[in-house]
Amino acid sequence: MNNELKKKVKAFAPASVANVSCGFDVLGFAIDKVGDTLQAEATSYPGVIIESVTGPGNLSTDPDKNICGVIAKAMLAKLDLHQGVRIRLTKGILPGSGLGSSAASSAVTAFAMNELFGNPFTEKQLVEFAMLGEKLASGSAHADNVAPAIMGGFTAVRSYEPLDIFKIPVPNELYCTVIHPKIEVRTELSRNILKKQVELKTAIKQWGNVAGLVAGLYSSNYDLIGRSLTDYIIEPVRSRLIPGYFELTQNALLAGALGCGISGSGPSVFSLCKGHETAKKVADAFTEKAVLLGLPFDIYVSKIAEKGARIIDNE
Amino acid sequence: MNNELKKKVKAFAPASVANVSCGFDVLGFAIDKVGDTLQAEATSYPGVIIESVTGPGNLSTDPDKNICGVIAKAMLAKLDLHQGVRIRLTKGILPGSGLGSSAASSAVTAFAMNELFGNPFTEKQLVEFAMLGEKLASGSAHADNVAPAIMGGFTAVRSYEPLDIFKIPVPNELYCTVIHPKIEVRTELSRNILKKQVELKTAIKQWGNVAGLVAGLYSSNYDLIGRSLTDYIIEPVRSRLIPGYFELTQNALLAGALGCGISGSGPSVFSLCKGHETAKKVADAFTEKAVLLGLPFDIYVSKIAEKGARIIDNE
Repeated sequence: MNNELKKKVKAFAPASVANVSCGFDVLGFAIDKVGDTLQAEATSYPGVIIESVTGPGNLSTDPDKNICGVIAKAMLAKLDLHQGVRIRLTKGILPGSGLGSSAASSAVTAFAMNELFGNPFTEKQLVEFAMLGEKLASGSAHADNVAPAIMGGFTAVRSYEPLDIFKIPVPNELYCTVIHPKIEVRTELSRNILKKQVELKTAIKQWGNVAGLVAGLYSSNYDLIGRSLTDYIIEPVRSRLIPGYFELTQNALLAGALGCGISGSGPSVFSLCKGHETAKKVADAFTEKAVLLGLPFDIYVSKIAEKGARIIDNE
Repeated sequence: MNNELKKKVKAFAPASVANVSCGFDVLGFAIDKVGDTLQAEATSYPGVIIESVTGPGNLSTDPDKNICGVIAKAMLAKLDLHQGVRIRLTKGILPGSGLGSSAASSAVTAFAMNELFGNPFTEKQLVEFAMLGEKLASGSAHADNVAPAIMGGFTAVRSYEPLDIFKIPVPNELYCTVIHPKIEVRTELSRNILKKQVELKTAIKQWGNVAGLVAGLYSSNYDLIGRSLTDYIIEPVRSRLIPGYFELTQNALLAGALGCGISGSGPSVFSLCKGHETAKKVADAFTEKAVLLGLPFDIYVSKIAEKGARIIDNE
């Protein structure tokens, strides 16, 4: 813990893939490189000013309507300081991509604020503050994106009451390839189409896969990871919202992906791969199919990012 | 693999705890010491003879109605040998206890037959043969008891089609204490009272716990194991079939158990504990409550048995 008060910090929080196929609302992992950057400057007067939001999306600079503003206010209130903060946010992730765009903004805000005011909060508290942003963005205070965006790596949200999050070790050669087809699927909508009830026998198959995926990650058993990456409950419903989902994932599997799934609530589609070479081949397979389907898209090839939110510049 | 043909083998397969709270139909572990013993002797003529079944229960010696007979027949048919086998089974586990009684008989048969005829089958095939016994005993070919009874340790049945079973490492100090209240709860009946549908939000909490339990076992995180030992789906229904269930488990938790659950389909109740001393205290806590409740019972304190089915004597 560093108690030295800083005048200004610049931090970064990564994009993330939540759900990870069988692990709906529980599992998530951070993606390298792509993410949101935030500069926070302490002011001598109270209040939160969002000076600018740049990059993709069209987010409000009203601190009551912007997730960074809401989180910063909550943290200042908790600290009971007669100070404020001036924020500049640079989005690296398009909102509505399914890559934890709001979570990255939430995570980077919580992390930067904590650094700026001398690290008064625990990592778990940072997750809780960041969940306020998720609540504003999607109507529910989920942690499956903010956990990896803050903590890095592969995370599991075991429980919300009380909040119980743990990290799962990641095999050395585990890569992901993510394609973001640039169509809009709103988190709230894709949540509302889910059935409220599931068959017990289907739920059993799903938690069998959760057991397999966690065991595969711990034991670096790539085959087991691949076999476990089947979602019997959410994917059959949500994949209908993603044009070409079946073709994209089939092509990725043919190119050697261990498995595929919907990233968060979509429309992004992720695959996990053993090794960088395979991940690049899967990127080619995604690209080939997306071009055929006439979809505009972005592609990311990344290790599972060991680091989550972090300082990239101090003044 | 040992291809030497034996004339007679004597084998043992342990009792087991299936479901393990959150891991319904998926997880299971083997219990030390208590289990079934089987002596198998090759005969020069075809056919299966069940010479004797001793110990608790009242099982048929008709090879078509006894699970050992059914499994031995299937294995002989697969081997296409003009030989047969004469079997003596000694039950160590009362049928209907929820401690994998039929699974132990099934496992010990599959294991002994394989040894007797020179180990022609893989471990996975032994599980498949043993599943025939489960089908006869309970109407469904489950593997969550036979897997630990054959393979030992903590096992997960990720999938049935195809059959995919893996072992999960067990922390050094993990013990279980199991109480078997001597009342009858038939597997088929306790299965029929389960609801066919579950709430998605409940299923999510359940697989969050499955993730936590598997991660806790891999990382020797006893607290995480304990926090994950909650079953939101099966226990609330099945525990009503077990008199004093709530009192027994509450007393075990007060005595230091990490968590409790129904063993298999009951009526046995298990707890997991850190260390032998705590497991013994939990045995006292179970005993105290069972005596108060006026229940006849057996109690077992055991490490998670690393070894499953095994030869205990060769001739």
